Amino acid sequence: MGEGRINHIKRILREGKVDGILITNLENIRYLSGFTGSDGAVMITENKGYFLTDSRYTTQAREEVSEFEVIQYKKKIEGLSDLITDLGLKGIGFEAQDLTYQAHSKLAERVNEGGLIPINERVKNIRTVKDDGEIGLIKRAIDIASTSLRENVRRIMPGNQEREIALELEFSMRRNGADSIAFDTIVVSGDRSALPHGKPSEKRIQRGDSVIIDYGAGYRGYYSDETRTFFCGKPNRRQKEVYQIVKDAHDKAISSVRPGIKAMEVDAITRGWIKDAGYGEYFGHGTGHGVGLAVHENPVIGPESEDIVEEGMVFTIEPGIYIPGWGGVRIEDMVLVTGNGCEVLTNLSKEIEIVE
Amino acid sequence: MGEGRINHIKRILREGKVDGILITNLENIRYLSGFTGSDGAVMITENKGYFLTDSRYTTQAREEVSEFEVIQYKKKIEGLSDLITDLGLKGIGFEAQDLTYQAHSKLAERVNEGGLIPINERVKNIRTVKDDGEIGLIKRAIDIASTSLRENVRRIMPGNQEREIALELEFSMRRNGADSIAFDTIVVSGDRSALPHGKPSEKRIQRGDSVIIDYGAGYRGYYSDETRTFFCGKPNRRQKEVYQIVKDAHDKAISSVRPGIKAMEVDAITRGWIKDAGYGEYFGHGTGHGVGLAVHENPVIGPESEDIVEEGMVFTIEPGIYIPGWGGVRIEDMVLVTGNGCEVLTNLSKEIEIVE
Repeated sequence: MGEGRINHIKRILREGKVDGILITNLENIRYLSGFTGSDGAVMITENKGYFLTDSRYTTQAREEVSEFEVIQYKKKIEGLSDLITDLGLKGIGFEAQDLTYQAHSKLAERVNEGGLIPINERVKNIRTVKDDGEIGLIKRAIDIASTSLRENVRRIMPGNQEREIALELEFSMRRNGADSIAFDTIVVSGDRSALPHGKPSEKRIQRGDSVIIDYGAGYRGYYSDETRTFFCGKPNRRQKEVYQIVKDAHDKAISSVRPGIKAMEVDAITRGWIKDAGYGEYFGHGTGHGVGLAVHENPVIGPESEDIVEEGMVFTIEPGIYIPGWGGVRIEDMVLVTGNGCEVLTNLSKEIEIVE
Repeated sequence: MGEGRINHIKRILREGKVDGILITNLENIRYLSGFTGSDGAVMITENKGYFLTDSRYTTQAREEVSEFEVIQYKKKIEGLSDLITDLGLKGIGFEAQDLTYQAHSKLAERVNEGGLIPINERVKNIRTVKDDGEIGLIKRAIDIASTSLRENVRRIMPGNQEREIALELEFSMRRNGADSIAFDTIVVSGDRSALPHGKPSEKRIQRGDSVIIDYGAGYRGYYSDETRTFFCGKPNRRQKEVYQIVKDAHDKAISSVRPGIKAMEVDAITRGWIKDAGYGEYFGHGTGHGVGLAVHENPVIGPESEDIVEEGMVFTIEPGIYIPGWGGVRIEDMVLVTGNGCEVLTNLSKEIEIVE
């Protein structure tokens, strides 16, 4: 697994003219080393990789981390500064988006002056392009999630609680092989569907409600993320109109995805469509985000993104319209960028779905 | 809820001679404002509190956050710097243990020179002493978890998989009213019980195994955290010896807990006992940690902690012995510090438990 990934870091090391690259972000640690625990650090130098962790994780690390020397520390900052001193490393690139101000200050005190160099921009995108192994795991997570939603569609009916539906959907995902749920499942109905990130409540579904279900499964570290909006009973004219606008925004964005397009252009397509339809003020979030070892990772598909779409990227397309006091609609798929377009990984219908 | 908590922050503000305190840690945000979402920031000045979030969360914030002015931003750093500029705030205390190096750099560029002052040490302990409402929620989380373990003890038997047991325990917690599980449940057996933070695997339990189960429930934002070690079949002499050493270390530490004792003294009791028994090298982690809105929070009950135990604190006592290739034992309870000692909140037996 690690060779190509480590070489990528070594290129950043050479280009950045530093002696070592310190990785503290847990997903990046897992990506590079294979370590699945929840605390540790990786240091990569021109000659060698080091994996550092505390005594809770050393046995696990020796099993999982084959391409690195495993070092046990009592305190992370001291373990890191000892390694830096022992190896005589002068410049160390670090993940500025991950390391806290305090950890940076303490480490900076202990290493040579000027020794820590923020290198975030170079490292942040190491995981955006997925290899076949990763794509296989993501597809498995998506299959588990979709199968589980299908098993539970019958529960989306008048009288059932948002919370119960979310719970049963989560149980199904775990029974169907998910190692974890990707995030707390969102089931929001009626005017609560205007909360883009609302928590499932005791509210019971009523006829006339739109019901947004946003959910995902975790499988061997990789995640799925998908959203469907159902209508409980025949949707009224405005519900149909809003649904169609969101669906068209979604479809048009997906049609635009291909290697070389700017992520902000993809975003502009959903945003422009929704704005032109008169609902611009009700779509506040980004169009999508990368999904992999983290549910939210790069690329960012948003209005200020500087990311360029590349073959092998996996990200969501998830426009929505949320009208306070009325309700909302969101449709979210995951796509895999191919040589000349993209493959929609999520395989559930996006046609309007009526449950009752 | 918020008045006393906000006054606490205002005292820090006055003592630190700053114009505002910026809170970015999500649990601290929830503690102070009541906001249960997953992105936002709080700014507290002498005269007023502000809650800032993006459009995904403004509707929710207006429902949940009553004592603050809710401000919507597009980008967090810009939202914060605009507020700081608009209010003419000069010195801003911030959570150095939470804010990333990058967020700090970007914010520092946009506000007056010298405007950001790390104030971590003052803010980090605001949640350590629990009020009655919080203790009630923690007790409820513990009840849910303990009830669920009791329902599943029968599954700890030869032939059953670690993963299945963990999954059924998690389902039980959710069915019994948990809003979430506190962390991925640990079920490790046989030599895998030497992994203090191992993941449940496909391994089936065998006669002769020790089985460590470390699990917790989440209830309205508060968590439980407890560990029991079972033996599958009559424990052998060494298993009994190790169990007794851990149990005595656990009991002695609990007997020592009272207001005024140093956390490092409590740690020294478990550590000294295990060391004197000849197993010092096999106990690498701390004795315990606070539990509340986060599963791991202050106080730290460890050898280098500077925390002093106070009435109203809630923390774990969880000594363990882990022998690679052989197995492990951990016993973990949660305690509430009372006026002259402590109340053990976890109500399951700590006697040796044999399942077969």
